Amino acid sequence: MKFVGFGELLVRLNPEGYYKFPQANCFNVGYTGAEANIAVSLSYMGVPSSFVTELPKNEIADCAIRRLMMYGVQTNDIIRKGERIGVYYLEKGASQRPSKIVYDRKYSAVSQSKREDYDWDAIMKDSTWFHFTGITAGLSPNMANICKDACIAAHKAGAMVSCDLNYRKNLWSPEQAQATMKSLMQYVDILIGNEEDTEKVLGIRADDSDITGGNLNIAGYEKVARQLVDTYGFKAVATTLRGSISASTNEWSAVLYKDGEFRKSKNYTIQLVDRVGGGDSFSAGLIYGFMNGYPNQKTLEFATAASCLKQTMEQDFNLSSVDDVLNLVNGNGSGRVQR
Amino acid sequence: MKFVGFGELLVRLNPEGYYKFPQANCFNVGYTGAEANIAVSLSYMGVPSSFVTELPKNEIADCAIRRLMMYGVQTNDIIRKGERIGVYYLEKGASQRPSKIVYDRKYSAVSQSKREDYDWDAIMKDSTWFHFTGITAGLSPNMANICKDACIAAHKAGAMVSCDLNYRKNLWSPEQAQATMKSLMQYVDILIGNEEDTEKVLGIRADDSDITGGNLNIAGYEKVARQLVDTYGFKAVATTLRGSISASTNEWSAVLYKDGEFRKSKNYTIQLVDRVGGGDSFSAGLIYGFMNGYPNQKTLEFATAASCLKQTMEQDFNLSSVDDVLNLVNGNGSGRVQR
Amino acid sequence: MKFVGFGELLVRLNPEGYYKFPQANCFNVGYTGAEANIAVSLSYMGVPSSFVTELPKNEIADCAIRRLMMYGVQTNDIIRKGERIGVYYLEKGASQRPSKIVYDRKYSAVSQSKREDYDWDAIMKDSTWFHFTGITAGLSPNMANICKDACIAAHKAGAMVSCDLNYRKNLWSPEQAQATMKSLMQYVDILIGNEEDTEKVLGIRADDSDITGGNLNIAGYEKVARQLVDTYGFKAVATTLRGSISASTNEWSAVLYKDGEFRKSKNYTIQLVDRVGGGDSFSAGLIYGFMNGYPNQKTLEFATAASCLKQTMEQDFNLSSVDDVLNLVNGNGSGRVQR
Amino acid sequence: MKFVGFGELLVRLNPEGYYKFPQANCFNVGYTGAEANIAVSLSYMGVPSSFVTELPKNEIADCAIRRLMMYGVQTNDIIRKGERIGVYYLEKGASQRPSKIVYDRKYSAVSQSKREDYDWDAIMKDSTWFHFTGITAGLSPNMANICKDACIAAHKAGAMVSCDLNYRKNLWSPEQAQATMKSLMQYVDILIGNEEDTEKVLGIRADDSDITGGNLNIAGYEKVARQLVDTYGFKAVATTLRGSISASTNEWSAVLYKDGEFRKSKNYTIQLVDRVGGGDSFSAGLIYGFMNGYPNQKTLEFATAASCLKQTMEQDFNLSSVDDVLNLVNGNGSGRVQR
Amino acid sequence: MKFVGFGELLVRLNPEGYYKFPQANCFNVGYTGAEANIAVSLSYMGVPSSFVTELPKNEIADCAIRRLMMYGVQTNDIIRKGERIGVYYLEKGASQRPSKIVYDRKYSAVSQSKREDYDWDAIMKDSTWFHFTGITAGLSPNMANICKDACIAAHKAGAMVSCDLNYRKNLWSPEQAQATMKSLMQYVDILIGNEEDTEKVLGIRADDSDITGGNLNIAGYEKVARQLVDTYGFKAVATTLRGSISASTNEWSAVLYKDGEFRKSKNYTIQLVDRVGGGDSFSAGLIYGFMNGYPNQKTLEFATAASCLKQTMEQDFNLSSVDDVLNLVNGNGSGRVQR
Amino acid sequence: MKFVGFGELLVRLNPEGYYKFPQANCFNVGYTGAEANIAVSLSYMGVPSSFVTELPKNEIADCAIRRLMMYGVQTNDIIRKGERIGVYYLEKGASQRPSKIVYDRKYSAVSQSKREDYDWDAIMKDSTWFHFTGITAGLSPNMANICKDACIAAHKAGAMVSCDLNYRKNLWSPEQAQATMKSLMQYVDILIGNEEDTEKVLGIRADDSDITGGNLNIAGYEKVARQLVDTYGFKAVATTLRGSISASTNEWSAVLYKDGEFRKSKNYTIQLVDRVGGGDSFSAGLIYGFMNGYPNQKTLEFATAASCLKQTMEQDFNLSSVDDVLNLVNGNGSGRVQR
Repeated sequence: MKFVGFGELLVRLNPEGYYKFPQANCFNVGYTGAEANIAVSLSYMGVPSSFVTELPKNEIADCAIRRLMMYGVQTNDIIRKGERIGVYYLEKGASQRPSKIVYDRKYSAVSQSKREDYDWDAIMKDSTWFHFTGITAGLSPNMANICKDACIAAHKAGAMVSCDLNYRKNLWSPEQAQATMKSLMQYVDILIGNEEDTEKVLGIRADDSDITGGNLNIAGYEKVARQLVDTYGFKAVATTLRGSISASTNEWSAVLYKDGEFRKSKNYTIQLVDRVGGGDSFSAGLIYGFMNGYPNQKTLEFATAASCLKQTMEQDFNLSSVDDVLNLVNGNGSGRVQR
Repeated sequence: MKFVGFGELLVRLNPEGYYKFPQANCFNVGYTGAEANIAVSLSYMGVPSSFVTELPKNEIADCAIRRLMMYGVQTNDIIRKGERIGVYYLEKGASQRPSKIVYDRKYSAVSQSKREDYDWDAIMKDSTWFHFTGITAGLSPNMANICKDACIAAHKAGAMVSCDLNYRKNLWSPEQAQATMKSLMQYVDILIGNEEDTEKVLGIRADDSDITGGNLNIAGYEKVARQLVDTYGFKAVATTLRGSISASTNEWSAVLYKDGEFRKSKNYTIQLVDRVGGGDSFSAGLIYGFMNGYPNQKTLEFATAASCLKQTMEQDFNLSSVDDVLNLVNGNGSGRVQR
Repeated sequence: MKFVGFGELLVRLNPEGYYKFPQANCFNVGYTGAEANIAVSLSYMGVPSSFVTELPKNEIADCAIRRLMMYGVQTNDIIRKGERIGVYYLEKGASQRPSKIVYDRKYSAVSQSKREDYDWDAIMKDSTWFHFTGITAGLSPNMANICKDACIAAHKAGAMVSCDLNYRKNLWSPEQAQATMKSLMQYVDILIGNEEDTEKVLGIRADDSDITGGNLNIAGYEKVARQLVDTYGFKAVATTLRGSISASTNEWSAVLYKDGEFRKSKNYTIQLVDRVGGGDSFSAGLIYGFMNGYPNQKTLEFATAASCLKQTMEQDFNLSSVDDVLNLVNGNGSGRVQR
Repeated sequence: MKFVGFGELLVRLNPEGYYKFPQANCFNVGYTGAEANIAVSLSYMGVPSSFVTELPKNEIADCAIRRLMMYGVQTNDIIRKGERIGVYYLEKGASQRPSKIVYDRKYSAVSQSKREDYDWDAIMKDSTWFHFTGITAGLSPNMANICKDACIAAHKAGAMVSCDLNYRKNLWSPEQAQATMKSLMQYVDILIGNEEDTEKVLGIRADDSDITGGNLNIAGYEKVARQLVDTYGFKAVATTLRGSISASTNEWSAVLYKDGEFRKSKNYTIQLVDRVGGGDSFSAGLIYGFMNGYPNQKTLEFATAASCLKQTMEQDFNLSSVDDVLNLVNGNGSGRVQR
Repeated sequence: MKFVGFGELLVRLNPEGYYKFPQANCFNVGYTGAEANIAVSLSYMGVPSSFVTELPKNEIADCAIRRLMMYGVQTNDIIRKGERIGVYYLEKGASQRPSKIVYDRKYSAVSQSKREDYDWDAIMKDSTWFHFTGITAGLSPNMANICKDACIAAHKAGAMVSCDLNYRKNLWSPEQAQATMKSLMQYVDILIGNEEDTEKVLGIRADDSDITGGNLNIAGYEKVARQLVDTYGFKAVATTLRGSISASTNEWSAVLYKDGEFRKSKNYTIQLVDRVGGGDSFSAGLIYGFMNGYPNQKTLEFATAASCLKQTMEQDFNLSSVDDVLNLVNGNGSGRVQR
Repeated sequence: MKFVGFGELLVRLNPEGYYKFPQANCFNVGYTGAEANIAVSLSYMGVPSSFVTELPKNEIADCAIRRLMMYGVQTNDIIRKGERIGVYYLEKGASQRPSKIVYDRKYSAVSQSKREDYDWDAIMKDSTWFHFTGITAGLSPNMANICKDACIAAHKAGAMVSCDLNYRKNLWSPEQAQATMKSLMQYVDILIGNEEDTEKVLGIRADDSDITGGNLNIAGYEKVARQLVDTYGFKAVATTLRGSISASTNEWSAVLYKDGEFRKSKNYTIQLVDRVGGGDSFSAGLIYGFMNGYPNQKTLEFATAASCLKQTMEQDFNLSSVDDVLNLVNGNGSGRVQR
């Protein structure tokens, strides 16, 4: 059992507490990236995990790698070349005030990487799962091709391939995203997205006409899932559902379509500590469940609970053990002190 | 378009997070004052703004001025003389525990200032709006007179004059406040206050007898507003309404009586980050709306949304852009991350 | 009027804010212990209070003592010998994520102390109240005996004796706890516990059979209280009731059985800042009420309000004055700023 | 053996590390005052010590008092009335950049206190030593008289009286200082000062004409000391000698004239951590030596070593035990780790 | 009198204190750039100063601009376009361990700017001094041309032009630097550099053969200066001389060749707080002296003292007033506390 | 090439900056231990390194392990059992004030470990170097035996064995140390110690009689080294020499006796940032040199320079790359910024 993730690793900088950018004299520093977050989460849960990227040869990039090593992620396949490690600045919102993210990731080493930089057959050796996201494919045309190469090698090695669509409007337009991502879908076994991703990235939108009453959205998501499976032959389609009550409180649940059945998870009302990385921790939970042969409903509940817990932690990594997650899956969300 | 505010600028010191005073080894430091907060807020929204006060010639007062400069406020008319810059200590409350403020503002430079210190005609040149508060008028008998001088000069320059009653029981008694403030009201175009100010400072209280049902308070506020307009000839009367559920959660809305119409804003339930400065940011929003010719309801909603946002930020300044406020006015209070 | 508490004093270390253990570069440091927390709380309310323990002769133990001195607690009877001061590490939870405590208290100086170390008659001179907890009795067989010695000396000095059962599963099993604690109950006047303590420590559990409807739990607690009074002759039995909605929000109330009457306090919904020490501050409030001859309902309300306030503060001490508590008892939980 | 100090207690605020005032987002907070620093130092060394002042009834003043209690100082005789607790802002210098202090102490409670506020006979009961400084006498004419009252009561109680001249140019001119202080000298047994104080406060200056060679300054200080003893009948005169190489490095030594002999201490080159409070810790060391009957040279060396150590610590208190000081007196200034 | 600087404005991120990059959980954040530092320094000294650059439209760039505004720098001519604001990471060294800087400035907005972006005649209106550095000219070929355009406009407006060669090996090779910079020298009135710059950037190196004895280096610098004046017709040539004893202690002095005379400044041994920005503060001091008609030696001493003080402060700005600098020029480097 | 270290891993807690214990509200947290520090240092230099210990199953011990993983140390052979992870509290000294360490390591998991817990043949597989210290052997009689077992297995695997005598007086007396350590010396190839260790732990002291002049100490160390080699057959003996000028400044050098030659390293005057871990980083440097076949003098210089650099960093790990060390070995101790 071995997970491989491929994507970007960035520096994350955010003012302490609820300071806005101009009020801050210092920024908390983290290191993050969609696929890296998943590798950390899985590694924290005991799954051997490797993260692949390109990073420049400098001490800040070293720090990013060490942060992964700290949580047991294998970093041997990280290629050291290129000019910069991307940065994103986060200002944490509260109540009616939204969080803000300023990206400075353009020209990052990995976004400039070339197909010949990667020996995917070697990287995928012994792997049982490969994951990438729409962010990674959207970094450059080269990167989309490299994702394809990775998928093919993964399948060759017998690994499952999952993809989180993760649409980012500052990376590309829906048109650009669709042009690229649709052609990658043939290599994907498990599709993951949030409420909007499917429409933006794959052009599939719930037909509202036959949806009525309280089951409105859910029925729409089921329909979309079926359509996706019909179109692309996915083994499973999972969607996270975020109800943004405010920047301080969110509703959080997810749905999973697999084996012809559509399932809905428990819903969590979360007092947010840091919601960034919520989707990634869901992917990690889903992969964990599938890797370990959990039944579908348990897999879905595990993924939803894992990502609920992530959002009660600072920074982008989900530092939850399997026991932590199962404890919540089993209904203990009371927050009573564990002595 | 130019705003002029006149009042005190103080040092604000508060323990980090939720530490109580005796637990703190360090105090976060801010610089604040009712009219200064408004000047910062308007300047942040792009309105040329000047703040007038007296401050001693020392490096702490320099810091206070620099903090205003940082947000673009004009500080050329600040007079440097006198002995001290006032201080207030704030212990932030939570849930059932109230915030506590210890004032140490007596003998501050501005409270000791003299009428002849100020050349109001020069200061008001090109101004289109002047604002002062009951705090400023209550600092000393001289200060009340200086406020009068400023109002007269403002009108001479063609500027509107607004006043936030802002009753502070540690500055003066209701009797003292009324003795001073009633005579200043003739110079005021726009009156602003919270639920209690009108009674304390102007002796006008809602007559409860004909108020029934759910509209109880609102109807009372309307009646008070009409009575104020009848008595003093204000062009508008605005009142903020705070529902203190706890030190962590407040309801927040406002009403505006103008052009013979009484309007109520949307109500916000705020997960408070720092509620100090809420009223000032409302005044700033109101002034912004009036200055820019917004319709009355939009002005009221803009002011209420602006002051809602302020309370989700640390310290006393409202660091919200016009876009930030309009985004909330337009119904987006979901706190979704802005990437 | 003088309070004496006997127990352990530990170092408390917790990551700042909501960081998890591996994310922390520094730990906030406090000094705490069930009976010490009560001594601080009572001293803060103006009651002369002494705390008795054993601590090694080193500078960290000095710090722990100084922290008590800062709040006026008498520390003259603290014995300086033994090898170590215990430590506990706390990771603060949020929302669905529970707080975690890692104890490192074994072999602490006080846990190794001997009966002959303490001259209880001298210590209890002038005391009017003695308090200990099940934690202290559970530290070692010697400690249980020393608690008994202290109780006997307290009664000799004319002091009341209160005991908080405070079951800790990492100290002993229910069987061990019962073997020790049952025999100590004859020395106890006022018994305090939470929902579970009575069953774990004294083996008395609400008989569910005749409990129906909404009063389910409350009726059960009354029955248990009566049974306890019948069995052990307590003058009063008080129980705190915590409803753990999440790690961020708790319900909090208490019941008191005294003078043949069973009373329930007001219920508080608390936005938690730090819930550790909640039970201790309840005990302190209860003792304060009894010491000052408050009526039973007022005593109960005072204790509940005091412990509500504690949970809105950082660290384990309740830094609330009598006025702070009475303010909440009298219905002011609005958290409005006190200027 | 009991020490009594009388003077002001202030809030001290300084930016962390080497930040200048405008760079700071938070200020470290301490509580300090010349005589309070001495009371803390003596209490830390095991001498029962009381500090007397006036402070307003507010929570910041409470904090100042608690900080003294933490180190065992008796605070029962502190009078709670008046309007404000003074503040001083400190910007720590480095190398060629000097530290800067901005005082905001005018109108402090103690500076406004009245002779009838103090029952000196009760305060001085059991005291064996009383200390005040020129700062305290310089706060107001009333304060000078109150110092006189205190001295008389001290002598009545059989206590020694020491005075540190401590000239502060922002409090008074040399002329004003001399007018007041000369008349107080008759009550003083032990006079303490730095290089400049004698000239500024008592008008006695070394006659340079007959001083030659390397002993230049020292000989001058001896002559001044003799003259002081001749004029005022002091039992001892001690002077600290600071060689300011830079804001980071100082030379530090002292001289003592007593029993007809003039003695010089060892000289220390100090890598400064915080030099404020250096003089106070010297006074405390001197008093400790005299109180404990140390020989004159040992007393001088003890005082110099104590004040050397103070300057290697943050804030104004000297947290050195008698053992710590004797260790340095005995020649161990190597800074080797004590395990 | 008005100063105009043109160059890059970057985010500066450094671990607190002496933490190395991988140890840091947070980075102190500053905003800096060679010419911006000079604008701040001159503005702090009371000289009207404007800074010109290009920055993207995002909130981090806003912060950088606000930091300049805080110190009074005019920022109206900053152009908001382009993709990124550059970043540099600084790890502060100590003793034998060197400081390390990781640059991430490539593709910054200003480095991509075009000649037509700037209306230099408008920008230079009323200016009396223009300054740029070799860093700015080295950012791109366009930037070198833009520097030329600025120089020409400056001269047209009657302003003096100064240039700090500021060679950075990660920007360009000596060959590239010389190819560009030599052709810009015709527009420069005052040339500034450190020990190595002249050789690297202009290819002029001291001929060692005739230098003997203790005046070795100094004589060499004089010869170089004369040669530079002969070649390029500079009105003055100034060189800073840093003696790096360790990362904690540096020697610092400077030489100036002007009006046919070669002068050497006093030498300072500095206990470094933060040496970055030392050269910029020297340029600012030099410009201040020339602008204010100081005699040559006084100008040199002023510049050297100013830059000595800078290195005793955190971050890259020299927050020294004219009085602060003159105090050191006049020989007061003792660091005695200024009360 | 693979290093194996065996010993204790502790929590290190120290107040920030120069705060003394009672002044601290928070403690910086590190994880350390003599052999663990060496494993980190070697791993940072690129040598595969494993650390062996016993640690309890709790989240604080997890943190300690993760900190090693962050720097690439293999932690697979760490045994998770036992009750506690030891703690040490460090108060950093300055100038004449010594650092203080309070140990709380008794009853730590590893100190209670048993011979049968370790499968040394498996652990030592592929190892080329094994290191332990006198601290580890002194933790308990069992631990001394376990060290012996490890040495034997190491030799069996063909690894070199080094030992740092590291005498700690709070662990054992010289008599106890000698009783244990002398019998372990037969398994040691490379002996390391500081000035005092040899006498305390092995009873061999320099005979002063024939030492004269400036080479006094050095000659003594040579004689001791020869005697050690004669007695125990060591392949090399290395001794670090610390000259404690103050807690802020130390002299640092070392001597090495190998292959019949006695060598002395360059001497460094260090402005200390944190001197703890200096000896461990010397051992690591020595081992690195030997492992890589450096000539003896280069090995000695490498080890001395490495340990010089360590003392300019916070915490106990030496985060120096081979290039960093060689840079200093090659004479670049100027601390010039590396851009």
